[in-house]
Amino acid sequence: MDNGSQQIELSPIKQIELLASKIPGVVSLAQGIPADDTPSIIKDEVISALQLGKAARYSLTYGLPQLREEISQHLQSIGMEYDWEREIIVTAGSIEGITASLLALVSPGDEVIITSPSYASYQQAIKVARAIPVEVDLDDKWQFDLDAFKKKISKRTKAVIIANPNNPTGTIFAKQELIEIAKLAKSNNFFIILDEVYRDLIYEDSLFFSLAELPEFRDVIVRVYSFSKAYAMTGWRIGYLHSDKRNVDEIIKTHDALVTCAPVISQYAALAALLMPEEQKDQIRQAYKNRRDVIVSRLDKMSDIFSYQKPTAAYFVFPKIKLLDWQDSWRLSLALLEQAKVAVVPGVSFGKRGEGHIRVCFGRSVHDINIAFDRMEEFFDKIKT
Amino acid sequence: MDNGSQQIELSPIKQIELLASKIPGVVSLAQGIPADDTPSIIKDEVISALQLGKAARYSLTYGLPQLREEISQHLQSIGMEYDWEREIIVTAGSIEGITASLLALVSPGDEVIITSPSYASYQQAIKVARAIPVEVDLDDKWQFDLDAFKKKISKRTKAVIIANPNNPTGTIFAKQELIEIAKLAKSNNFFIILDEVYRDLIYEDSLFFSLAELPEFRDVIVRVYSFSKAYAMTGWRIGYLHSDKRNVDEIIKTHDALVTCAPVISQYAALAALLMPEEQKDQIRQAYKNRRDVIVSRLDKMSDIFSYQKPTAAYFVFPKIKLLDWQDSWRLSLALLEQAKVAVVPGVSFGKRGEGHIRVCFGRSVHDINIAFDRMEEFFDKIKT
Repeated sequence: MDNGSQQIELSPIKQIELLASKIPGVVSLAQGIPADDTPSIIKDEVISALQLGKAARYSLTYGLPQLREEISQHLQSIGMEYDWEREIIVTAGSIEGITASLLALVSPGDEVIITSPSYASYQQAIKVARAIPVEVDLDDKWQFDLDAFKKKISKRTKAVIIANPNNPTGTIFAKQELIEIAKLAKSNNFFIILDEVYRDLIYEDSLFFSLAELPEFRDVIVRVYSFSKAYAMTGWRIGYLHSDKRNVDEIIKTHDALVTCAPVISQYAALAALLMPEEQKDQIRQAYKNRRDVIVSRLDKMSDIFSYQKPTAAYFVFPKIKLLDWQDSWRLSLALLEQAKVAVVPGVSFGKRGEGHIRVCFGRSVHDINIAFDRMEEFFDKIKT
Repeated sequence: MDNGSQQIELSPIKQIELLASKIPGVVSLAQGIPADDTPSIIKDEVISALQLGKAARYSLTYGLPQLREEISQHLQSIGMEYDWEREIIVTAGSIEGITASLLALVSPGDEVIITSPSYASYQQAIKVARAIPVEVDLDDKWQFDLDAFKKKISKRTKAVIIANPNNPTGTIFAKQELIEIAKLAKSNNFFIILDEVYRDLIYEDSLFFSLAELPEFRDVIVRVYSFSKAYAMTGWRIGYLHSDKRNVDEIIKTHDALVTCAPVISQYAALAALLMPEEQKDQIRQAYKNRRDVIVSRLDKMSDIFSYQKPTAAYFVFPKIKLLDWQDSWRLSLALLEQAKVAVVPGVSFGKRGEGHIRVCFGRSVHDINIAFDRMEEFFDKIKT
């Protein structure tokens, strides 16, 4: 029988992790997983909610009212005004929010623009919504090329997905270009799904701007956030989205059909994360910044092998492979996995523009990063001889 | 802008719960939520996993290997042979499993047969997959009418969803008819999504048979289970599905695009649930059976208002409204909500065949059931005068 998923591939990140899980002793810098455990301040709150019997039952489909109120207050503190009752949905991670939004807002055959490179799962999510992914190449600094972007807009364009900060590049998009794209969205009637899951891991604050701060664009913007990254909570599957009520009225229906509601125990974890003291959040960010500095210094020592754009956010770096024989990023990634026991993600997973690159995650510990780079150095020394 | 979700409605169960959440003092027998907290034996295991730092990170997309192995062993104990590594996916509740299966196995414009009445969210899930729900009426005993079923099969039929035990009726389908439907699925090339989420709440064991026990049908059957009901875990969003590898190879891709993986903390809760002593499971089942007996005796006292089929499983009863003036089930449900402060679900939510009925859940406490019926008796006394 033929079926609906023929065109969809399992995300290459998950393919690599599956392969890596079968090889003993692999150090993985592949999937974006923080090295640390979820902070104990969050775990303590979860245990308390559990003991009070708060986690057993469904929440409302939108999520716990208390959590949505807290999210709404947090949004206000970063310049975004959204009504907790009808404009915010607590989701089972950001990918559920993105897929629910696409299923609600686009129709089969519509086109959805994504940057190349961008997060591998966008392609899947778009195909699950039976829409067509259209890649637009980023420039050499991983910024938007507005002329290239305009050329990709057609009558069938219904949405663009923008990750800011971007994954896999760890870079931040410029304010002026984001505003131009929002104007294009207004005039051409398409949505912007604004994925800001790395917003709390920014190492140069002055660079960052969110389109969701501008009320004139709220009807075309669905902003998505996840607690996975800054709070080491990838396993909890918890995030949220917000948009104008008119869009949320549609998305709530598809969200309901996907998961009924976000896991309630994880909603209590999210509540604790939002209430975490600012100093503790700063400490987490500082720890990632240190890891960024370690990975960058290791890359600098391999300048005959890699060139790269220094990440200013998130926990990825996306080095370009200089060796002409190893431009095939799947071939290099599999060789690194099998011969060096280091898992990285082939750059082509993030779009055609990503070929000739690999994605390396510095969410893992400094110890793991150093072992992985020692092994990679050894691998490249061997192939050069 | 038009969009993909125009045809979809928020589940009426959720609509009722949203309305009920705004009226102080309502007793809800609407959404299928167990009265009790998740058993402490499960919560203790979760706390231990949390303290050991096991819950922070993603699991593999399929789910934790240890949990899948335990599921596979459990399946073996009930006569089902499925490979833990490639034929089982841990899902974020059963609805995620159903929606992921539909998105993987059906194409836009395909038809999916559902019984009328059946669980309200099937309609939504089918529409999210851009397919067309086709209702087939159950007979007066809530059993399949095979002739009626055959008439609904067309060239576009790609799947049928069967909840056994059935929701909202609390009844069990007969073995012989299930086998006939499986043969039709084989000969007409359609899938059976077999939703057995109420399998562990059966009060007359001799009646129950699962199609997933017969290996000759494994290529057309996707069986779905949830820990929500028998273990009072609705808020945890955790369940699983299993099928032949060929189908699971497709479903894993859509599952990944919906949620990446099931919430890991909930996967540890599921593991503890599977390892719970049999006596404790029996006690839970016995408690529901007692509630069933309470609700049935209360309904017997209202035989001028309702007639009903005695539930042999699950925690729902689906009484038929005898009063000619109150055949509109939305009108009655809203009147009960506003005037009697009792939330029930309008029967029409479960399909056209459900009009003239209401769904009443006996998952709640005996105390709540009695208060709700006292109030309903008072309401009907008033309208009769």
